[in-house]
Amino acid sequence: MSETTGNLLKGIIPPMVTPLSSQDEIDRGGLKKLIEHLIAGGVHGLFILGTTGEAPALSYRLRYDLVQQVCKQVRKRVPIYVGITDTAFTESVKLSHFACEQGADALVVAPPYYLPVGQAELIEYFEHLVSELPLPLVLYNMPGCTKVIIEPNTVLRVAEMPGIIGLKDSSANMLYFNQVKQMVAIRPDFKILIGPEELLAEALVFGADGGVSGGANMFPRLYVDLYEAAVARRAEDVKILYEIILKISATIYSTGHHSSNVVKGIKCILSLMGICDDFMAEPFHRFRAAERAIIKKHLNNILEILSRTIL
Amino acid sequence: MSETTGNLLKGIIPPMVTPLSSQDEIDRGGLKKLIEHLIAGGVHGLFILGTTGEAPALSYRLRYDLVQQVCKQVRKRVPIYVGITDTAFTESVKLSHFACEQGADALVVAPPYYLPVGQAELIEYFEHLVSELPLPLVLYNMPGCTKVIIEPNTVLRVAEMPGIIGLKDSSANMLYFNQVKQMVAIRPDFKILIGPEELLAEALVFGADGGVSGGANMFPRLYVDLYEAAVARRAEDVKILYEIILKISATIYSTGHHSSNVVKGIKCILSLMGICDDFMAEPFHRFRAAERAIIKKHLNNILEILSRTIL
Amino acid sequence: MSETTGNLLKGIIPPMVTPLSSQDEIDRGGLKKLIEHLIAGGVHGLFILGTTGEAPALSYRLRYDLVQQVCKQVRKRVPIYVGITDTAFTESVKLSHFACEQGADALVVAPPYYLPVGQAELIEYFEHLVSELPLPLVLYNMPGCTKVIIEPNTVLRVAEMPGIIGLKDSSANMLYFNQVKQMVAIRPDFKILIGPEELLAEALVFGADGGVSGGANMFPRLYVDLYEAAVARRAEDVKILYEIILKISATIYSTGHHSSNVVKGIKCILSLMGICDDFMAEPFHRFRAAERAIIKKHLNNILEILSRTIL
Amino acid sequence: MSETTGNLLKGIIPPMVTPLSSQDEIDRGGLKKLIEHLIAGGVHGLFILGTTGEAPALSYRLRYDLVQQVCKQVRKRVPIYVGITDTAFTESVKLSHFACEQGADALVVAPPYYLPVGQAELIEYFEHLVSELPLPLVLYNMPGCTKVIIEPNTVLRVAEMPGIIGLKDSSANMLYFNQVKQMVAIRPDFKILIGPEELLAEALVFGADGGVSGGANMFPRLYVDLYEAAVARRAEDVKILYEIILKISATIYSTGHHSSNVVKGIKCILSLMGICDDFMAEPFHRFRAAERAIIKKHLNNILEILSRTIL
Repeated sequence: MSETTGNLLKGIIPPMVTPLSSQDEIDRGGLKKLIEHLIAGGVHGLFILGTTGEAPALSYRLRYDLVQQVCKQVRKRVPIYVGITDTAFTESVKLSHFACEQGADALVVAPPYYLPVGQAELIEYFEHLVSELPLPLVLYNMPGCTKVIIEPNTVLRVAEMPGIIGLKDSSANMLYFNQVKQMVAIRPDFKILIGPEELLAEALVFGADGGVSGGANMFPRLYVDLYEAAVARRAEDVKILYEIILKISATIYSTGHHSSNVVKGIKCILSLMGICDDFMAEPFHRFRAAERAIIKKHLNNILEILSRTIL
Repeated sequence: MSETTGNLLKGIIPPMVTPLSSQDEIDRGGLKKLIEHLIAGGVHGLFILGTTGEAPALSYRLRYDLVQQVCKQVRKRVPIYVGITDTAFTESVKLSHFACEQGADALVVAPPYYLPVGQAELIEYFEHLVSELPLPLVLYNMPGCTKVIIEPNTVLRVAEMPGIIGLKDSSANMLYFNQVKQMVAIRPDFKILIGPEELLAEALVFGADGGVSGGANMFPRLYVDLYEAAVARRAEDVKILYEIILKISATIYSTGHHSSNVVKGIKCILSLMGICDDFMAEPFHRFRAAERAIIKKHLNNILEILSRTIL
Repeated sequence: MSETTGNLLKGIIPPMVTPLSSQDEIDRGGLKKLIEHLIAGGVHGLFILGTTGEAPALSYRLRYDLVQQVCKQVRKRVPIYVGITDTAFTESVKLSHFACEQGADALVVAPPYYLPVGQAELIEYFEHLVSELPLPLVLYNMPGCTKVIIEPNTVLRVAEMPGIIGLKDSSANMLYFNQVKQMVAIRPDFKILIGPEELLAEALVFGADGGVSGGANMFPRLYVDLYEAAVARRAEDVKILYEIILKISATIYSTGHHSSNVVKGIKCILSLMGICDDFMAEPFHRFRAAERAIIKKHLNNILEILSRTIL
Repeated sequence: MSETTGNLLKGIIPPMVTPLSSQDEIDRGGLKKLIEHLIAGGVHGLFILGTTGEAPALSYRLRYDLVQQVCKQVRKRVPIYVGITDTAFTESVKLSHFACEQGADALVVAPPYYLPVGQAELIEYFEHLVSELPLPLVLYNMPGCTKVIIEPNTVLRVAEMPGIIGLKDSSANMLYFNQVKQMVAIRPDFKILIGPEELLAEALVFGADGGVSGGANMFPRLYVDLYEAAVARRAEDVKILYEIILKISATIYSTGHHSSNVVKGIKCILSLMGICDDFMAEPFHRFRAAERAIIKKHLNNILEILSRTIL
């Protein structure tokens, strides 16, 4: 591992988009540029094969290819977290071993997401899974996609299993986040990361260890700056930077009508910036000309704001 | 194909459970017995790799193995429908070609089920998918697992694509079912099957072409008899048989507390009947002794009722 | 009472719209015409102050006025059911006594609908309420408006309280309907009525005692005919009439974009027929010219179909 | 008015519980004690007839009585906000005039909460309502009870109507809260209050004007202290006080199993403190002995923590 476990799960860890050149092919040049863009932006880790990375929509062949390419390009400069969420237990375990061999640092798993699973079943599932994994594991609460909340009591139970190092909460439910934070306060080594960047500042100021912010794919420095301002208790700077992040959400992410728009918007921006292709895996499709034009205007606006923001 | 397309999607087509002896191994003996049990019971087809078949929880290796074993055992005696629902387009297409080579008759697909997909995106997805499939396709509406309703207008649009032969509706929403039935009435070759067996009689009496009834795994003849009574307009017989089906639901399916209980109950019964193993793929686990004892009592009760039911 | 309790809750009992001439005034002429239209159409009772009657949107003064006018006009020709659903217990009880004095036959109550109530709380609530009511009571399951399902086990418990004579189910969930029907089968005096007319035929053919069909405000004879065909087991006639009802739903009720459209559509038709005003109480507003023109076309189409339907 | 409109909607405004001695009777002694307890605790206003005040469950007679008693007891020492949320427009307007005559300062209204209302309908409803109200109006977003979100765009539209002074958001959805805050940033006179006290600190630190915190019924000084610490940017004090509030939520509000538990818990505490009766209006019922004993332990624990908390 590039870091001791104690240093994992801190700071801004972008859920990296997967640059694609077609349905079943990585945009290899784009991938390299994106990784360098993120590391240059100061991010504290990379989370690949998550929701923003379109993991479930990729063929298994491509997922393995991606893990390999990313590990090779990163060369231990930052920790790599690999999503192994799957409806098939066997596939999760298999991928985890490959990720370990390639040099990844930790794994991330949300509950299986087809037939809804009960909490008692979920605890048993995590127990069985953990015993077969070769790397530390981060729980991933993502009820909007999995239909299943990892309830606070379940988090508490699972947190006691060996190798569980933290939780990424993408529920967008701050009541849940606060409840879990309070319950695991007795376990300072158990880290909590916030998913939605529209809750990033609140979460960091009140004790989150970091954020898995999709927007950091586009503007890594902005999110890293906010994280550092929060750690240093520079409340005014936090507010100034947060305004920009909320503006990104209100403009770029609000273009179009589907829940896939966040990823579409991010990929569109990365394409406009010349970093990587904006091809999206089925069942989604990149923004067409009309939305792309709108996104371009939003990008220019955000770049203008960023250029005149001096803390 | 064992049948012309015109004869597909009629009658009782059980969503076959997948007999397993361990997490990644088919119970081959059990699989053969189960198939013979179903064909002997008069079923009009077999739907494999559906929700009841735990498809998403099986490794890809095992899914291919299952398709092969089933096609070999069935030997064209009844049509085989293969579920290719997947979050990864590439995997759906790949499996469809294998199924075709092995001799399957049709494919079944529900919307990709991770990040919720919009209706416009869904139409485009089906369009792209259909163009790559080698066999007729049945749409599968299963919002409880996919979070996405194939809206009536979307069904109408997709029904016009080549190769689309019908819809299996497992929404348990009879308003939806009636609405779709009414809308596609102009297309008599477009078939509609009802998923939940607790709506089977209503659906058949008012025009459904058949049912994908999980309970037919256990008691195929009961469901086939009800189907035939409905076709022959023997209203009194329909009611008598339906009472038994509703009793199965109120007893066997109501044991335990999770949405996985239906499959657990069916597998437990099949195990008690000596047909196949009741092992379940993660994240689910077979009923333990306490529930098994309850299920056994329910089984005896149902068998007793069946033995004295003479139409 | 105009009938013994044993004769209550049978057949078509329209949830009567409340003809209004302004926000706080009954359209008295319209009310009389509507009542005569319904009785002439053969309905088996009148349910006033329900959802279709806009009860919660009416001032208390007007609710009392309506009860009085209706009882006076009906003159015991058919049973009158008065909705007393309220978030305030005291107001429900008070209205029930007034309804009794005016000659109503039974009361209808859904759970209090502001802060969601638990099942244990609900049972206690019904217990307290029933003990203060002067007339037989019908339970009203309407989760779309109350947020609370009267769960089958709760129905079973409450059904044992004195004066409870049946359930009106407007959940549009046929699984629920079948489950309750099965559970109360041991109590043949406990009646079950179906709310949504898009499930009317299925419900009647499989054992419902009647329907509270909003469309019977417009075309009472159509719904009464279907009821009688179902009772007489004339399956073909049921289907022919049901087609028309489903067409009403697919046209008249599908105009506009809000859940209030069903009531708006019914009132618009009644206004076009010259029966009563289509004014709606806040927060809803009658259809404007554009929708009215569409509704008029639908009306002509339905009238044309009705005129050539000979059973 | 005791204040100019510019001074309304700032600070801690408890949603006052309604002390009852029976189903239709105010606990008058308790009411006086409670009001003095709150004013002595430094609260910046009183919100009566809200969700915590059980408004929908009270008879109209009692609601009027309460408005009168509260206005008389408060004697303009703090602003009084009166909830006029109702399914019946006429009743809302009538109550608003009475509240004005009695000396209340502002009104609070959530959308009508029976048949779900669309956003276009909602805008029209607010337009009609506002034109008939004699006092400034606060919008109340409470989708958990009303089923209807006042969408950000609707807030923006309604905020332009005369007399609309702010929004109380009880959605517990911080994404919504942040979105609305951002959208109305151009209107600094439009105030935003946060409902759930489990989001109070985040909201205040990031720009909310105040909180409508149920817990302030019990411990007004605690919430007022947190508000003042947030205004003075004493970040460490905010955290210390917030810990206690989150503990109140995790203990007192988490006793029992229903959504009514928050109000039950608050009333139970007030009863244990000797302030007022804990009788609850139907369909809810006060905590029985078992829960009361648990609440007592929680109270002692909180009092102990409060006694040793020195900022």
